[in-house]
Amino acid sequence: MNTLELGKKVWFFPDGDIPDPGDGEMKGHESLVILNPNNQDAQITMTVYFTDRDAVVLNAGIVTAEKVRCIRTNEPIDEFQIPFGQYALKVEGTVGIITQIGRMDVAQPNLAYYTTMGY
Amino acid sequence: MNTLELGKKVWFFPDGDIPDPGDGEMKGHESLVILNPNNQDAQITMTVYFTDRDAVVLNAGIVTAEKVRCIRTNEPIDEFQIPFGQYALKVEGTVGIITQIGRMDVAQPNLAYYTTMGY
Amino acid sequence: MNTLELGKKVWFFPDGDIPDPGDGEMKGHESLVILNPNNQDAQITMTVYFTDRDAVVLNAGIVTAEKVRCIRTNEPIDEFQIPFGQYALKVEGTVGIITQIGRMDVAQPNLAYYTTMGY
Amino acid sequence: MNTLELGKKVWFFPDGDIPDPGDGEMKGHESLVILNPNNQDAQITMTVYFTDRDAVVLNAGIVTAEKVRCIRTNEPIDEFQIPFGQYALKVEGTVGIITQIGRMDVAQPNLAYYTTMGY
Repeated sequence: MNTLELGKKVWFFPDGDIPDPGDGEMKGHESLVILNPNNQDAQITMTVYFTDRDAVVLNAGIVTAEKVRCIRTNEPIDEFQIPFGQYALKVEGTVGIITQIGRMDVAQPNLAYYTTMGY
Repeated sequence: MNTLELGKKVWFFPDGDIPDPGDGEMKGHESLVILNPNNQDAQITMTVYFTDRDAVVLNAGIVTAEKVRCIRTNEPIDEFQIPFGQYALKVEGTVGIITQIGRMDVAQPNLAYYTTMGY
Repeated sequence: MNTLELGKKVWFFPDGDIPDPGDGEMKGHESLVILNPNNQDAQITMTVYFTDRDAVVLNAGIVTAEKVRCIRTNEPIDEFQIPFGQYALKVEGTVGIITQIGRMDVAQPNLAYYTTMGY
Repeated sequence: MNTLELGKKVWFFPDGDIPDPGDGEMKGHESLVILNPNNQDAQITMTVYFTDRDAVVLNAGIVTAEKVRCIRTNEPIDEFQIPFGQYALKVEGTVGIITQIGRMDVAQPNLAYYTTMGY
């Protein structure tokens, strides 16, 4: 019943900003979560935008058909570590996907959450 | 004045992750909230996606015409308990619906909220 | 340069739940914020949906042309007080509007925020 | 491969409310983050709406092609300081952009976050 029309192929996240991991048991981080509800694997390409340098295009591997995958932006992607500071993302799939970003901030004693569906 | 065109029939939530309920009076949980603004009942089907196993299709009952219903994802749905860890959802109605997910996290002394409208 | 095409005339919020106001200086509350970017006043109608009783239709007054207005859902609207517990909203304008809901929760010592743009 | 069709040219944020900066190391603030994924610079115009006074139109400068830019709403824009209290924004680009707003509130000992993609 699935078709390749589920989701869409291009997503944007303007406000990326990797938080300090902190010293506690729970580490501050950002997660990009990608759902591929289609019956064909999605090859993922990420473009990372900055405030003052050229954008970087990364091969982020695949999200298998009918699976969800969580990519930590505080860990290297395609051997590239996104630096601290403001960044933005374009996320593209070769088939339709749905993407959401979440940030867990532990800069103060209690965690704070920040999430949005992509555009 | 309502027509079956209000809302839409398919919704996606990439980032599901049931929080630890904790020991306090307020229990950590996730809620999927479904509004049916139409004048006909909506039969709800949920597809749960995982990172490394096959998706599961659940009969989530109905949302009566012109009512709202809250489904706790930390409780069994169609006799299936979504396990801890990353999951994603597709929510389908036989008539148009509007869906939103919310997570209340009590892993640290103060609660944190995380919400998004579905896509 | 504005036309009546800015924004849209019907918005939905599935997850409404008025928080306990608490005893502190900052009171827990929910706010429905409506922007009318058009050059004509918008007459606002709200439909409140419940889990187990009939929906209620309220006259929520106007949002003047090119103004923003904040409606507290914990205060009476059209002489009706939304009760505690799960509810949902349909918000309609006679001209295009843009709507967002926000909840400030003070059930624990530190506030938590919960917001989403309407659908 | 980029075209001027990426993103869109008009965005709205109904719920703006600059938080108290507070006395701590982390200052309460709101940030409007604008991504320009196109290969041509975007000239940005912001319209600030209020509850009881005329809207103000500001020249917010440019977002260079394929860059992201963060604009603090608690600092002057086009020599205009948005006052405390409810406000709303229209953000326009001469080419397609994607915009998100975020608020960091430190009114209580731990920060709280509030974010949404624009409409």
